[in-house]
Amino acid sequence: MTTIDLNADLGEGFGRWTLTDDEALLTVVTSANVACGFHAGDPSTMRRVCELAAARGVRIGAQVSYRDLAGFGRRAMDVPAAELSDEVAYQIGALEVFARAAGSRVAYVKPHGALYNRTVHDAEQAGAVVEGVRISGGGLPVLGLPGSHLLDAVRKAGLEPIEEAFADRAYTAVGTLVPRGEPGAVVDDGDAVVARALAMACDRSVVAITGERLPVHAKSLCLHGDTPGAAALARRVRDELIASGVKLEPFA
Amino acid sequence: MTTIDLNADLGEGFGRWTLTDDEALLTVVTSANVACGFHAGDPSTMRRVCELAAARGVRIGAQVSYRDLAGFGRRAMDVPAAELSDEVAYQIGALEVFARAAGSRVAYVKPHGALYNRTVHDAEQAGAVVEGVRISGGGLPVLGLPGSHLLDAVRKAGLEPIEEAFADRAYTAVGTLVPRGEPGAVVDDGDAVVARALAMACDRSVVAITGERLPVHAKSLCLHGDTPGAAALARRVRDELIASGVKLEPFA
Amino acid sequence: MTTIDLNADLGEGFGRWTLTDDEALLTVVTSANVACGFHAGDPSTMRRVCELAAARGVRIGAQVSYRDLAGFGRRAMDVPAAELSDEVAYQIGALEVFARAAGSRVAYVKPHGALYNRTVHDAEQAGAVVEGVRISGGGLPVLGLPGSHLLDAVRKAGLEPIEEAFADRAYTAVGTLVPRGEPGAVVDDGDAVVARALAMACDRSVVAITGERLPVHAKSLCLHGDTPGAAALARRVRDELIASGVKLEPFA
Amino acid sequence: MTTIDLNADLGEGFGRWTLTDDEALLTVVTSANVACGFHAGDPSTMRRVCELAAARGVRIGAQVSYRDLAGFGRRAMDVPAAELSDEVAYQIGALEVFARAAGSRVAYVKPHGALYNRTVHDAEQAGAVVEGVRISGGGLPVLGLPGSHLLDAVRKAGLEPIEEAFADRAYTAVGTLVPRGEPGAVVDDGDAVVARALAMACDRSVVAITGERLPVHAKSLCLHGDTPGAAALARRVRDELIASGVKLEPFA
Repeated sequence: MTTIDLNADLGEGFGRWTLTDDEALLTVVTSANVACGFHAGDPSTMRRVCELAAARGVRIGAQVSYRDLAGFGRRAMDVPAAELSDEVAYQIGALEVFARAAGSRVAYVKPHGALYNRTVHDAEQAGAVVEGVRISGGGLPVLGLPGSHLLDAVRKAGLEPIEEAFADRAYTAVGTLVPRGEPGAVVDDGDAVVARALAMACDRSVVAITGERLPVHAKSLCLHGDTPGAAALARRVRDELIASGVKLEPFA
Repeated sequence: MTTIDLNADLGEGFGRWTLTDDEALLTVVTSANVACGFHAGDPSTMRRVCELAAARGVRIGAQVSYRDLAGFGRRAMDVPAAELSDEVAYQIGALEVFARAAGSRVAYVKPHGALYNRTVHDAEQAGAVVEGVRISGGGLPVLGLPGSHLLDAVRKAGLEPIEEAFADRAYTAVGTLVPRGEPGAVVDDGDAVVARALAMACDRSVVAITGERLPVHAKSLCLHGDTPGAAALARRVRDELIASGVKLEPFA
Repeated sequence: MTTIDLNADLGEGFGRWTLTDDEALLTVVTSANVACGFHAGDPSTMRRVCELAAARGVRIGAQVSYRDLAGFGRRAMDVPAAELSDEVAYQIGALEVFARAAGSRVAYVKPHGALYNRTVHDAEQAGAVVEGVRISGGGLPVLGLPGSHLLDAVRKAGLEPIEEAFADRAYTAVGTLVPRGEPGAVVDDGDAVVARALAMACDRSVVAITGERLPVHAKSLCLHGDTPGAAALARRVRDELIASGVKLEPFA
Repeated sequence: MTTIDLNADLGEGFGRWTLTDDEALLTVVTSANVACGFHAGDPSTMRRVCELAAARGVRIGAQVSYRDLAGFGRRAMDVPAAELSDEVAYQIGALEVFARAAGSRVAYVKPHGALYNRTVHDAEQAGAVVEGVRISGGGLPVLGLPGSHLLDAVRKAGLEPIEEAFADRAYTAVGTLVPRGEPGAVVDDGDAVVARALAMACDRSVVAITGERLPVHAKSLCLHGDTPGAAALARRVRDELIASGVKLEPFA
């Protein structure tokens, strides 16, 4: 039987501000990337999301970021490697408290926003993130983009890389994401997103923007939850995957 | 043989700024109250202080604070209890990562600055701090002022209260601290501080500002390290205690 | 002809997060209390709100706050008076740049949230806010609650106090607001809010929660815009005031 | 008579933390680059430095930075241009309040740290900084590195570029700074620094690290004040310049 993991970013409010529909998304995903306070995520939101996730059997991951509340972690920063490692470890530790208190634990790490994008091609920062994971002590797997420097560094450190795919993003012929800003980079049509998710999970393939069929090895599909209608679309993807006989469960 | 613990605040820099002479103080104290990022203490400083403390056998405590970098945690804040608990737990969790990475662990909690002072008399915030300690999961002891609401709440929660005394602060006849700002509240004279520390450790007493001799049950003496000459005075207190046959070791 | 000012809090997002429906509210109010970055309000939001306000002839006010993004300025803080004055002045100066760039200017000051509530009864902080206004140099009027220490301090400093009233808050027999949390403190019913606004503007009176008719001298009505449906209700209040022959214009 | 301006970074503490010896430096420089709160500089420090500068006739400049307290503004950030412009304008406006309150005004702008370095070669961010200066409305001159994209953008915007030179930095044969980290990049020897400052001011030249004599057109010399001994060396440079008949005054 085909199985796949669904992950999404959660807990991305801060204090008075909310963003992600955490309750709705926690009925959809099997893995929750929980913001840890550096780009979003105050302690009370972290606790609440961990409690909800634990109650529903959703796996908890640390969504680590540059320290950038004003920019929501979307502005790449030239953080020296040692500082970055320590900032990553700090965030994992803070989340761990709430995961444990909820009867669960932090089970993986995923960089957020600009740190995710930067560590695709920046070997030094990729290594720094992995060193932060190592400092945090749990030997945690890391969720990332296939072919990224980040997952290379994860492999070299003897940790487990988890590849993810995006049903709502176009792929180039060589399997990289079409950069945002280029035409067709984001798949807006809900039906198309669902069809691509099904192809990724069941056929283990996706059609590139240039027409080639590409293999997909991802263990997890990333769903977005921070735009209007996103939670509803994520729910549709989930329902259609289940209807097609795909088993949804956290990556092994 | 008389034993006593010496504690001081450490790691109270932030990024480019330094404050406490951490290396010097770690040759003096047996317990280090490490700032956790809310009033001071960036992740790299936290890691470094934990490594030094672990290497020297100094116990590591989480010095938790209001979220107030601009005010150094010295401005009391009306934080709702649940928020405060979560903020305390967050800080403990973040420090725990660095304590563990250094081969040690967070062994106690001590509120900083305005939170310390507020929880002397504010039962709600005292309870919130203790709830934060409970969320953090380790059943950690809490260091505080004898007679404070904080230590009451600690006791009620079934955790261990650790009383501390201040050799450089004047006491009233009923054993409370003379408020800063009142004449004689702070003992400036180094010889007097040393003499009072010796009396506290060896005779288990201190003379109140009004002349009465008061019993001292504190297991720990708090030394200050953030003013010029403070580290040198702390060193003198340590040396004279040892010379007088007092054994310095972390509270049991 | 009866005239009155309508004010509301605007620009209370921060970076990725939005809160107030600024575009809608700027078609309703005559005075915009613009967040200045301490509890909400990033520079780009400040600029945008100032441009929209200037284009519509809406007066711009500096909505100054404690430095507390995590608590949205809703947690009272024991900020020393001199610090508070300087923080207030800093915020006014930052907003002034965007008001001027839009062809307008900062025309008044209103404290936000916990600072508003604290300066009702805390003479020291009230004085500190007024000193901040004085430092900022423009001799700006201050918007506040009738009977507050804040408006007393404004008067004493030779500045202009502007009283405001709340159509959606219950009043006690002596004209103070029924504290939030007490039964009936907030008027939830839209029709009632509209009726009270009309009475305040046209009859210059409001009925207390205990039945007495109280005089209202307020030059401005405060509308809320940060809850669902709030902007629509604010629009209704505006329309009904105009339909009743009230002229809406910034306070003189 | 030869005249030159001396500038240095001031007010680079934050809350409890201090860094620059502001009082000493204000007896040395003719232009003070005052931190505005984004990398350092709380409102009370800003006010105090402005008062001291105004009292001594020292010109006040806005030392604008990325929003990065944790990294002291030393970590380059990919801030979108419009955001960066608004952040720059915000900082200038905030400082202007304190400069005016002290009877002076903000007379120029100088980017700090990573923003200074980035805008040497990044035309987009250079343009964004200049746009921020334009938004701030005063038509302020900008202090920067000769040959930088920043000063190009300043010129194109019709504002006044002010070139500065560094007596304690080595220059390449083409007149750029030898990058920090390369051997000899920083001139540590105090006598050499003084000699270079004299050559820059009196002979309008400096010897490159490769031996060539280069012309110096700078109107201002930048002195450093944030390292031990820096204030004393800055004082020596000042005294020797005066002894050599150089007139120290703010750039025209």
